[in-house]
Amino acid sequence: MSSTTAGQVIRCKAAVAWEAGKPLVIEEVEVAPPQAMEVRLKILFTSLCHTDVYFWEAKGQTPLFPRIFGHEAGGIVESVGEGVTDLKPGDHALPVFTGECKECRHCKSEESNMCDLLRINTDRGVMINDGKSRFSINGQPIYHFVGTSTFSEYTVLHVGSVAKINPAAPLDKVCVLSCGISTGLGATLNVAKPKKGSTVAVFGLGAVGLAAAEGARIAGASRIIGVDLNAKRFDEAKKFGVTEFVNPKDHDKPVHEVLAEMTNGGVDRSIECTGSINAMISAFECVHDGWGVAVLVGVPNKDDAFKTHPMNILNERTIKGTFFGNYKPRSDLPSVVEKYMNKELELEKFITHEVSFSEINKAFEYMLRGEGLRCIIRMDA
Amino acid sequence: MSSTTAGQVIRCKAAVAWEAGKPLVIEEVEVAPPQAMEVRLKILFTSLCHTDVYFWEAKGQTPLFPRIFGHEAGGIVESVGEGVTDLKPGDHALPVFTGECKECRHCKSEESNMCDLLRINTDRGVMINDGKSRFSINGQPIYHFVGTSTFSEYTVLHVGSVAKINPAAPLDKVCVLSCGISTGLGATLNVAKPKKGSTVAVFGLGAVGLAAAEGARIAGASRIIGVDLNAKRFDEAKKFGVTEFVNPKDHDKPVHEVLAEMTNGGVDRSIECTGSINAMISAFECVHDGWGVAVLVGVPNKDDAFKTHPMNILNERTIKGTFFGNYKPRSDLPSVVEKYMNKELELEKFITHEVSFSEINKAFEYMLRGEGLRCIIRMDA
Ligand SMILES: NC(=O)c1ccc[n+]([C@@H]2O[C@H](COP(=O)([O-])OP(=O)(O)OC[C@H]3O[C@@H](n4cnc5c(N)ncnc54)[C@H](O)[C@@H]3O)[C@@H](O)[C@H]2O)c1
Ligand SMILES: NC(=O)c1ccc[n+]([C@@H]2O[C@H](COP(=O)([O-])OP(=O)(O)OC[C@H]3O[C@@H](n4cnc5c(N)ncnc54)[C@H](O)[C@@H]3O)[C@@H](O)[C@H]2O)c1
Ligand SMILES: [Zn+2]
Ligand SMILES: [Zn+2]
Ligand SMILES: [Zn+2]
Ligand SMILES: [Zn+2]
Repeated sequence: MSSTTAGQVIRCKAAVAWEAGKPLVIEEVEVAPPQAMEVRLKILFTSLCHTDVYFWEAKGQTPLFPRIFGHEAGGIVESVGEGVTDLKPGDHALPVFTGECKECRHCKSEESNMCDLLRINTDRGVMINDGKSRFSINGQPIYHFVGTSTFSEYTVLHVGSVAKINPAAPLDKVCVLSCGISTGLGATLNVAKPKKGSTVAVFGLGAVGLAAAEGARIAGASRIIGVDLNAKRFDEAKKFGVTEFVNPKDHDKPVHEVLAEMTNGGVDRSIECTGSINAMISAFECVHDGWGVAVLVGVPNKDDAFKTHPMNILNERTIKGTFFGNYKPRSDLPSVVEKYMNKELELEKFITHEVSFSEINKAFEYMLRGEGLRCIIRMDA
Repeated sequence: MSSTTAGQVIRCKAAVAWEAGKPLVIEEVEVAPPQAMEVRLKILFTSLCHTDVYFWEAKGQTPLFPRIFGHEAGGIVESVGEGVTDLKPGDHALPVFTGECKECRHCKSEESNMCDLLRINTDRGVMINDGKSRFSINGQPIYHFVGTSTFSEYTVLHVGSVAKINPAAPLDKVCVLSCGISTGLGATLNVAKPKKGSTVAVFGLGAVGLAAAEGARIAGASRIIGVDLNAKRFDEAKKFGVTEFVNPKDHDKPVHEVLAEMTNGGVDRSIECTGSINAMISAFECVHDGWGVAVLVGVPNKDDAFKTHPMNILNERTIKGTFFGNYKPRSDLPSVVEKYMNKELELEKFITHEVSFSEINKAFEYMLRGEGLRCIIRMDA
């Protein structure tokens, strides 16, 4: 197919969000060819992450519609634009919402993955190259989302937002490494870095939180305490090595006090994967003084304020935040895929639902109801 | 002297704070002998730290008076109580406000120096052993301060709060390592850990902040930006390798924005040494995203709230707090003294004033007026 479509506009199906909070509509869209340093990717599988839902609901945001959401996916390169040498048609790849140009200060720093050029930008709906969209319907541009827009059979990305992976890896599984699972896993392994035998609290037992718990298990934590307001989450979480559960609703004292009592003063590490400001503050206040480290992963609301007594910080606690688990997408993601190939990491248990592309709104319903973890959307069905 | 006074009550001079904010009064006090695991120290030199002033002013605190303040000092062991094997009469030592029992989880952890038994406790005015004071005047007990109470010719401490040092080290110089200078130095070297060539901001150019700047210089920082509201501080600071100065009063935008503009997005590390909540928040918000680390050292007020947008954290910034620069006093302080002996570290430039014990209130005046850095109080004069 690549030989015949390269350089041409492709007409294909995409799920378009016309308005905030309204069901997506499958439309026929035109996808322009990739320009310099761009890649056109045929998406085979995509899944839904909380971040899509958040920007689709667009509460308290300046909405950018019509838009094509989607950023967790797996696909095959259809064609590449001028100057692209790292990827060629037929390569298997994962799109990533936060890119890696390999040239800026962040890409050159060992500590950061927040590329100056390609870091997550939820306000931008166009390509960097020319400030325009590659999607249109009858000449009306449709906006991109975080440089990925994977709810389309074909999408165009900057080359820095595409991680080339092992072609033997099953895309219907490893597509979940494109965002949520790598984010949670890396938040634990790369940022919180629990020592063997330590106690780790995970706030929010969605896919991201359970991947953080999986990271804690891999790191050899002896206690992994899952915290969620949704009791339904606890059953699934048992498959993920979570050893204890706390539902803040079951207690009449603040959850950080409950955790401190369970752990003789506080947990060694905590990872917040909810997006709730209350959980962010509790996740910080529940870590032990002297050595406790809290890592924030959830995307907060615009008007949220993180507020704590400065003595909580002075008492030798640490708080950090991370995007994409501090993985550099192009440099590090291939090795995360290998962890799955080597059976160090299980992905099947994160995939609780599967729908055809035409049923994509069902995936939104599952997430809104807090049912299951990841719903794979098959583009060919 | 030790042979004749051991086991006896010693009558000596001490500067007693009878009331919050009122000048200290030199009184004759009785100092009881050390009990089990205690040490009686003859203080030769002491100096004044901001923390003494803060608890002497006792604004918004539950005051504990009459009290003997003082925690930065150098002295010689006069006698030891039962069970003390690490120290003997004649040893040179520095008292430390945060002790090291060597047995608790914190003392055994590589990451913490917040000993469960002997960590700083500003509310306790008595010895741990029996809940009583060792100081009295005509039978009226006088409270201790942070387990040190060095504004007395003799004082009693728990053995875990006494660091034995090289007897060749001049006590009138190394006494400043007992608190402020080690605190600032360690905040940079042990906690912020700037890389060679990096940019470091220091908020507050008192002795603690200038010691933090000294740490940045030792670590090879290429730019050291000093921030203070008191312009008088800038002259002194030039001796400490501070390369640029910012007075927030000279700008009509927030100081974190001023720093971000000076540094292409933010400093690599910042160290807050003021005690002001505004400075704590600015010190956090001025670090670069991706890799910036802010370290809080200043002691906040009771009702302060540390407040920031959680996105500032999510953007891969880190914030940490530290007591005593994360040094374990008994294990690590002897080697900091050696840094002075080897001329890696200069202490003379921190010592800007000297008074006799009878003039101790002058030291308070210098600090309240923001004049100079450390004022040495000679006990024998
Ligand atoms: N930093 C990043 O790079 C990054 C990447 C992906 C996702 N995210 C964010 O991570 C978060 C989790 O994503 P997900 O896909 O797993 O979402 P999810 O909706 O599947 O899971 C979130 C869970 O948090 C629970 N929760 C909500 N408020 C809570 C509270 N106060 N206390 C305890 N539990 C609470 C919910 O019940 C739910 O089970 C979202 O905010 C998402 O936007 C961040
Ligand atoms: N964490 C610890 O272990 C520890 C140990 C010793 C001292 N301390 C604390 O460290 C702080 C500094 O101690 P010091 O002895 O150097 O005090 P100091 O009074 O000599 O110096 C503090 C400096 O901060 C400046 N300052 C105040 N508010 C400011 C603001 N908003 N912005 C910029 N500068 C501001 C003052 O002008 C002053 O120059 C105090 O809060 C003290 O209690 C903490
Ligand atoms: Zn996501
Ligand atoms: Zn980059
Ligand atoms: Zn001090
Ligand atoms: Zn201890």
